[in-house]
Amino acid sequence: MKSALIVVDMLNEYDHEDAEILVESVRAALPAMRHLVERAEPERTPTIYVNDNHGDWGAGRPEIVERAIAGRARDIVEPIAPADGTWFIAKARHSIFYETQLEYLLREQEVERVVLVGQVTEQCILYSALDAYVRHFHVAVPSDAVAGIHPDLAEAALRMMARNMRADLTQAQDCALS
Amino acid sequence: MKSALIVVDMLNEYDHEDAEILVESVRAALPAMRHLVERAEPERTPTIYVNDNHGDWGAGRPEIVERAIAGRARDIVEPIAPADGTWFIAKARHSIFYETQLEYLLREQEVERVVLVGQVTEQCILYSALDAYVRHFHVAVPSDAVAGIHPDLAEAALRMMARNMRADLTQAQDCALS
Amino acid sequence: MKSALIVVDMLNEYDHEDAEILVESVRAALPAMRHLVERAEPERTPTIYVNDNHGDWGAGRPEIVERAIAGRARDIVEPIAPADGTWFIAKARHSIFYETQLEYLLREQEVERVVLVGQVTEQCILYSALDAYVRHFHVAVPSDAVAGIHPDLAEAALRMMARNMRADLTQAQDCALS
Amino acid sequence: MKSALIVVDMLNEYDHEDAEILVESVRAALPAMRHLVERAEPERTPTIYVNDNHGDWGAGRPEIVERAIAGRARDIVEPIAPADGTWFIAKARHSIFYETQLEYLLREQEVERVVLVGQVTEQCILYSALDAYVRHFHVAVPSDAVAGIHPDLAEAALRMMARNMRADLTQAQDCALS
Repeated sequence: MKSALIVVDMLNEYDHEDAEILVESVRAALPAMRHLVERAEPERTPTIYVNDNHGDWGAGRPEIVERAIAGRARDIVEPIAPADGTWFIAKARHSIFYETQLEYLLREQEVERVVLVGQVTEQCILYSALDAYVRHFHVAVPSDAVAGIHPDLAEAALRMMARNMRADLTQAQDCALS
Repeated sequence: MKSALIVVDMLNEYDHEDAEILVESVRAALPAMRHLVERAEPERTPTIYVNDNHGDWGAGRPEIVERAIAGRARDIVEPIAPADGTWFIAKARHSIFYETQLEYLLREQEVERVVLVGQVTEQCILYSALDAYVRHFHVAVPSDAVAGIHPDLAEAALRMMARNMRADLTQAQDCALS
Repeated sequence: MKSALIVVDMLNEYDHEDAEILVESVRAALPAMRHLVERAEPERTPTIYVNDNHGDWGAGRPEIVERAIAGRARDIVEPIAPADGTWFIAKARHSIFYETQLEYLLREQEVERVVLVGQVTEQCILYSALDAYVRHFHVAVPSDAVAGIHPDLAEAALRMMARNMRADLTQAQDCALS
Repeated sequence: MKSALIVVDMLNEYDHEDAEILVESVRAALPAMRHLVERAEPERTPTIYVNDNHGDWGAGRPEIVERAIAGRARDIVEPIAPADGTWFIAKARHSIFYETQLEYLLREQEVERVVLVGQVTEQCILYSALDAYVRHFHVAVPSDAVAGIHPDLAEAALRMMARNMRADLTQAQDCALS
């Protein structure tokens, strides 16, 4: 079953409400995310960054990367910043599927399973897992490679994904990519 | 702000896994749902039933109502079954918005706020609240008029709606319809 | 390659502007449409009616059929009216794909090719052919089984479908269904 | 009524079939397009470039602009190439609306009318006009600011837009932008 690795909303200036808690959680999850990003290319798994454009419709990958690096937590942006040429889809709302080209791209690539990493577990990750499941993609969410704000909601979100979206929550180390 | 009352998945044969627990929860929530359905017409609030067609693409409102009444819990179907002529949208997946005409209908009616009642709190209600929020509709989910399966997940779902989707969780009695 | 036969907007009261010209065109195309509808079941090709609900969100297949039969051209409605249980999708706008469940249904059925019959060649048929092509479905439009209003635009629409949407315009008699 | 100016598929390497005919048509339409692009900013009309990414999901505005300029018809690309910061949406298929963020952006900006310029009249322009009309946007297509390949189909496309999508075909000089 062909998989794609999707990196959600990791280009963040961390200047919003609750950013401090989130930064700690991202810091803890970053090694597992990087582990997967580094495995993707040799395992021939397409990697797609999907990131909010924060309402700037003139901003693409270079501008969004640059601003995130210039933000409040450069140390957790740079290690995961996408290289030139990385597949990139800008989004305006929470779900990575809402009025974006992602579903089209996944079907064109004959992807049947998405591995979601990034932030925020109980928000964009949950919503994106749902939208993937509704579209009949298999969903994997390595629970050590996603970052949350409210631990109780993040934990409930993971249980919802496992129980109601049949998501595989295996740790990054054990998560198949292909 | 114009509202619409949306009755989600209440036409159910209750023959699926977890149906017994769900039936108890529906029984408890039914009076609050009926309270809102009965208020909607005099308050000139459009009422829309959105219901799964359980994969039968030849089934519309009459067939779906009939089968639910013939199912395992007639007593919680009949009191909320839609009359002839009720606005009705069939869906195939969990969210009431996924590839349905609902958004079109709401915009045509100039609706800005949706009041969601029905089932299942931590599944279709949560997902539909999210999809409404992503589309910039205001969301109200009277917490006594929705039914769940897993109390802990249902409770977490309500907190997610309140915190991350700005949903109004007021009880049915106090829930504005117009 | 699995095909589906799609009957577009044939449930019409014919009380709109230009209805008279359209009625004549439908009368000429009806035998070819019926030929295909009759072949579909023995050839195990799913048949799907997609029809405008003319803005009545309480109307499903039974109401839409009944009103069309009670309209101005019963003789061209009854011979093509769908039986109980026929797969049916209501739409509110011109394209059969716009915010309807059609794409979901086609993918669930593993359909890769759509055969479009019905009306109006230079409007809903053209737009639906386009939306099918954009979604990578193969498109067949038997040119004797579609009805138009403006012969010059209908003819241009067919050329657009052939040239720019790679549609197969074979006559109904020769049109493969499976 | 708030309008947006939309520049469709003008970043083209012109290395495809039929490119030579198209180049001639673009050359003729370019002054009218530029006229509108230059008026947009002082008239406070948002300008949005929507352009095919030709299947390269790692390419955003800078890469798509650069490649078009390096293509076979630099003289008709440079004069209309978008400046840094210009609103830009990449698309993968013909219609500017198909699984893109355009509708979301237009609604967020409270746009009610789209002015379409670019290419190809009987393909992407026609399809985009249709998708705008289906979504209840008013449509203007200045007929001297769009470029086609087949003159007969282009002319039929314009008549379809006028007759069936109520498009305003006024010349660029007379086309209102706000």
